[in-house]
Amino acid sequence: MNSLRLSRWAVRVLMICLASAASLQGEDGHRLWLKYDLIRDAGQRTAYQQKVRSIRILGDSPVLKAAGAELENGLSGLLGKMPPVAAGFEDHQLVVGTFAQVAAAIGQEMLPGGENPGPEGFSLRRIQINGKKVLLITGEKEVGVLYGTFHFLRLLQTGQSLENLNLTQSPRLKLRLLNHWDNLDRTVERGYAGFSLWDWQKLPDFRHDYYRDYARANASLGINGTVLNNVNANTNVLTPLYLEKVAALAGEFRPYGLRVFLSIKFSAPVEIGGLETADPLDPAVKAWWQEKAREIYRYVPDFGGFLVKANSEGQPGPQGYGRTHADGANVLADALKPFGGVVMWRAFVYQADVKEDRHKQAYNEFKFVDGQFRDNVLVQVKNGAIDFQPREPFHPLFGGLPQTPLMMEFQITQEYLGFSTHLVYLGTLWEECLASDTYAHGPGTTVARVIEGDLDGHTLSGMAGVANTGTDRNWTGHLFGQANWYAFGRLAWDPRQSAAAIAREWIRMTFQPDPDTEATILEMMMASRENTVNYMTPLGLHHMMGWSHHYGPAPWIKDKHRDDWTSVYYHRADPEGIGFDRSPSGTDAVSQYHPPVAQKFGSSESCPEKYLLWFHHLPWDHRLASGKTLWEEICLHYQSGVEGVRRMRGQWESLAGRVDSRSYREVASLLGIQEKEAVWWRNACLLYFQTFSKRPFPEGVEKADQTLDYYMGLEFPFAPH
Amino acid sequence: MNSLRLSRWAVRVLMICLASAASLQGEDGHRLWLKYDLIRDAGQRTAYQQKVRSIRILGDSPVLKAAGAELENGLSGLLGKMPPVAAGFEDHQLVVGTFAQVAAAIGQEMLPGGENPGPEGFSLRRIQINGKKVLLITGEKEVGVLYGTFHFLRLLQTGQSLENLNLTQSPRLKLRLLNHWDNLDRTVERGYAGFSLWDWQKLPDFRHDYYRDYARANASLGINGTVLNNVNANTNVLTPLYLEKVAALAGEFRPYGLRVFLSIKFSAPVEIGGLETADPLDPAVKAWWQEKAREIYRYVPDFGGFLVKANSEGQPGPQGYGRTHADGANVLADALKPFGGVVMWRAFVYQADVKEDRHKQAYNEFKFVDGQFRDNVLVQVKNGAIDFQPREPFHPLFGGLPQTPLMMEFQITQEYLGFSTHLVYLGTLWEECLASDTYAHGPGTTVARVIEGDLDGHTLSGMAGVANTGTDRNWTGHLFGQANWYAFGRLAWDPRQSAAAIAREWIRMTFQPDPDTEATILEMMMASRENTVNYMTPLGLHHMMGWSHHYGPAPWIKDKHRDDWTSVYYHRADPEGIGFDRSPSGTDAVSQYHPPVAQKFGSSESCPEKYLLWFHHLPWDHRLASGKTLWEEICLHYQSGVEGVRRMRGQWESLAGRVDSRSYREVASLLGIQEKEAVWWRNACLLYFQTFSKRPFPEGVEKADQTLDYYMGLEFPFAPH
Repeated sequence: MNSLRLSRWAVRVLMICLASAASLQGEDGHRLWLKYDLIRDAGQRTAYQQKVRSIRILGDSPVLKAAGAELENGLSGLLGKMPPVAAGFEDHQLVVGTFAQVAAAIGQEMLPGGENPGPEGFSLRRIQINGKKVLLITGEKEVGVLYGTFHFLRLLQTGQSLENLNLTQSPRLKLRLLNHWDNLDRTVERGYAGFSLWDWQKLPDFRHDYYRDYARANASLGINGTVLNNVNANTNVLTPLYLEKVAALAGEFRPYGLRVFLSIKFSAPVEIGGLETADPLDPAVKAWWQEKAREIYRYVPDFGGFLVKANSEGQPGPQGYGRTHADGANVLADALKPFGGVVMWRAFVYQADVKEDRHKQAYNEFKFVDGQFRDNVLVQVKNGAIDFQPREPFHPLFGGLPQTPLMMEFQITQEYLGFSTHLVYLGTLWEECLASDTYAHGPGTTVARVIEGDLDGHTLSGMAGVANTGTDRNWTGHLFGQANWYAFGRLAWDPRQSAAAIAREWIRMTFQPDPDTEATILEMMMASRENTVNYMTPLGLHHMMGWSHHYGPAPWIKDKHRDDWTSVYYHRADPEGIGFDRSPSGTDAVSQYHPPVAQKFGSSESCPEKYLLWFHHLPWDHRLASGKTLWEEICLHYQSGVEGVRRMRGQWESLAGRVDSRSYREVASLLGIQEKEAVWWRNACLLYFQTFSKRPFPEGVEKADQTLDYYMGLEFPFAPH
Repeated sequence: MNSLRLSRWAVRVLMICLASAASLQGEDGHRLWLKYDLIRDAGQRTAYQQKVRSIRILGDSPVLKAAGAELENGLSGLLGKMPPVAAGFEDHQLVVGTFAQVAAAIGQEMLPGGENPGPEGFSLRRIQINGKKVLLITGEKEVGVLYGTFHFLRLLQTGQSLENLNLTQSPRLKLRLLNHWDNLDRTVERGYAGFSLWDWQKLPDFRHDYYRDYARANASLGINGTVLNNVNANTNVLTPLYLEKVAALAGEFRPYGLRVFLSIKFSAPVEIGGLETADPLDPAVKAWWQEKAREIYRYVPDFGGFLVKANSEGQPGPQGYGRTHADGANVLADALKPFGGVVMWRAFVYQADVKEDRHKQAYNEFKFVDGQFRDNVLVQVKNGAIDFQPREPFHPLFGGLPQTPLMMEFQITQEYLGFSTHLVYLGTLWEECLASDTYAHGPGTTVARVIEGDLDGHTLSGMAGVANTGTDRNWTGHLFGQANWYAFGRLAWDPRQSAAAIAREWIRMTFQPDPDTEATILEMMMASRENTVNYMTPLGLHHMMGWSHHYGPAPWIKDKHRDDWTSVYYHRADPEGIGFDRSPSGTDAVSQYHPPVAQKFGSSESCPEKYLLWFHHLPWDHRLASGKTLWEEICLHYQSGVEGVRRMRGQWESLAGRVDSRSYREVASLLGIQEKEAVWWRNACLLYFQTFSKRPFPEGVEKADQTLDYYMGLEFPFAPH
């Protein structure tokens, strides 16, 4: 029998290699981007080991314990062993603690140098302490130190140098929240990754291991809050039975700086309070909310606040009592104020009985209450004025409501972008919105700057993402759905980051490092959203999906009880042409934007082609920049979307053997479905629009293999919705 | 730096030990009883290695590939390495193949010796082939060889000797099925382990890894069929959209001998067929079912058949057209017959408008159609006449319907036994039922023998278990829920096995081997069901759970639209006494049993105390065998149930450090909930019954810490149901 002479260290490394190899066989995605697999490049591993020869953590609070546990988990994985924990300062030590803890350990005031990163920020610095060269992860507060710890690990995960490390980061937004549209029966509205993570029946006593992992993943991105329940809220969540369960979750999340928020139903004072009204100006209603707030804070002392969907899509609200959105928000804000809670009042409102262009309604309703909200209220605005479409121009409320802090609402779950079946990297969608110039304070007033709030003197700011998480083993159904959770969190931390840079980070943390793999996946991701726009809703088309469940194409939806829930309301195809005229000759929705934007969008000459049919109804033979007609370009865009998916399939196939076999197989299978569905979208939409255009398909557009009747006859009675 | 001199082999073992150690840290339960962790006892491992020095698999069909993959997985785990695969016969080789394959490999007729195990059975034999001593896993068919492979691995997992191995096993029942009460929206009726495993939205193209694991787990027990959807069926499952998805699942399961069945809705010819009637005697209806069967078999060539809930709890059925259950079953049976399919027609029927004791209705409805069913119909009968209660006497249809093959329906999911929160080993419940003597063919005609069918000359036989599986990582929510899946499968294979022997097997396969651990867990399991009977429904009480969701105690339920859905209908407590008089002086339900049973149950003197209040209404001061009054015994049973749970908690705590930390923590937490809920059951029931008995609690019964009003006021709006 052969034998080997191995150091203990080599044995350890060998074992970890084996574990890595095993994970290469069948990565189930549960570890997300916090994989911490052994760094394969021995040189780099050694370089890191030399920079982190020991560790000293200057406190033992739950938050610092969490940081310590993450370092142990991370470093023992990445480096093959956990550096020893030391009691005193040593050369090449990783020192972890707040300014105050560092000062106490040194026995003097904190050394100056570096800007103060604020209450949630952190600094990573190479400094000398008592003559020892150490690497310091520090911040004003422990949660900043925790974020710094995750950032430090990310540097190692993405292969960054630790030489001359001296950086300070703080979040540009205060509230960085996931919004879970999770119901108390564990179904998830617009959930495509299984069911709600919250196992209400077994809470509060039984706590799944994954609650902690959820908190870790969020903390690694700086996400600092989570709204546990659906904005279409059930009042029971405010009863003691559920508050006890909410408190248990809050307890699991607290060491990771993740605070709990709840969606409330405006009629709660009637439904569970026994009052006869929920009128926000009624003293009994005020008192009820005050007492309810007190009760909630007894269960959850660091409770974050309320998210409210009111007077929208059937939800009750202050308008039912002749009051304004401000009246509604303020009664809640007053109740939460003594405890430090906030109200996030959603601007996603549009009325069934209002005939005005849905695009204009939210602006109209909120414009006249600007300035009337309490200082602990934010108005939460979806990125666009309709509803999370594959592409929308930015919502005119951004830049249109200067006296009110606006919280961005993005949707991470892919309600309109192929569920969890399609590979669509949303970083580019969000970047496009955040970089849009509102001109509110002249050129350069991007949406990002508006929500950051300092231009308008707001102290509150935030970004919410409608979560794409569920009980699926890999959290998001599609492996690449993880990238969207990741990108949301990174953009909430700093809305000025580039989608490409974020994608590159995620790729390095998710896949085995390899430049070709990274480049290929980056290319796939960066093109993916434009692909999807092309095969679903090119050139500014929107809202043409299946009825109710929103699965698949259905541009023929009409004659429903609400016009603004049909497809024909939005595309307005007719024998002459197609598109929604929101120019001054139409609904004049463009006038809600600041003049430079209104002018650009308002003319079909200057309107970017990507928004063309959003703002203009144009003849089928209208010539676009390419010299081709509108009809031809519509057809070619759909075709190009399909080809984009085929390109992705080819790119992914080129990675066989370079990503673990299970991820490879699963993504390949999903890309297969995506191609089928892209073809379905193209065929259904083009055959349908052809009934109006009466024009042939241009060369290069493949012939549909089914008839329009076939597509119109498809039904999906149990598609998730 | 220290160094070690290690053989390659030792390194390998070390690595696997490390992996085992890791799994000891955090076993998530996903591997079920197929863990295949390294056998720790080096002597035993060596003994096995010497018996299995090489492997030869005599075919490469999907089924034999599955067997081979399981051996590779199992042996490389258990023994630390996979024995080499050899092309020729060698000494101490494990040879795997059917009789025919062995004969072909030897080049002669199969050597005689050993009984023929039949189409699904297997033999494990040490024999000489071509002068080589080999260990042969064989059978008439490949699926038997697969079952034999799992049995062989089980011998290793449970530490059995391989010396003088010579055994033949074949299943005593032909159909061994899981019944999934899974809906097409992925909710599960009476599901407590997450949601449906079937990800309909992504099927047929995307197939979760766990589909294969599900099939493996079932095959390891000999379960050979699965009914994918709820008996409260949705007709869409019979449309092409879903049949394509069903076919995909069937494809995943096929290599493991697991056939797919569907629950159908009797009104399908109307709902999806466009007919005006579903009358089973209507020629168009017959033709429709025949064509539907043909269509199904085009998708799934080995489709198993239909499960039907008809004329029960609102489901449509033949009685709606004035036809009998036999008429209804036969139209389906005729349609399936050409393709080899069967109909499982459920006997769980009772009418809202019939005033007869619910206990008697199924017997009454089926007795007069005995002998009228086609030969590919089984009547599927729940173990008791009410509904999966913690304890029921056996259903009088067992032994009461001699001309019809009866399929046993057990419930693995714990609808009435604490959901997935309570540790209740159901092996003892099922054993109690199967061992009950019906006296149908004189003494010794146990329920097991009745369902085996040979006494009555039936060729069909079967057992169904309502599944407790779901998307929870450990499949069943509670680790010990896995034991119930396991026990069901083992009893379906051989209904004469002992619950204790099965429990011991499961423990050895699930936990690290250790005699004390095994003894402690066995004690917990064997006592657990009686504990639950005691704190829920002692002495024959039944059906006293929360309304609709069935969570928690609610003996006060009354005045609902159906008497037989209330609690008071069943316990009949009044100032004089308690219990349901089903003796000749009452509803005379006992007369449905054969005379020796009818006599025993019919008299309060001879009736076993465990069934006492099931069959008799008795005064509070009625003396029981103990000399204590009925009231006292009721109270003491409830108290003893609570104490039993506390005992389990103590037993489990004694295992700290001996079971992996995650399982330890999770089960400990669930036992904590179980104790709380046992106390709740005791207090709620005793306080409620005391309002009738007007008697004090006997010594030893703890005082309730809440009032009856408190318990009656509890509401659980989102408890799973």
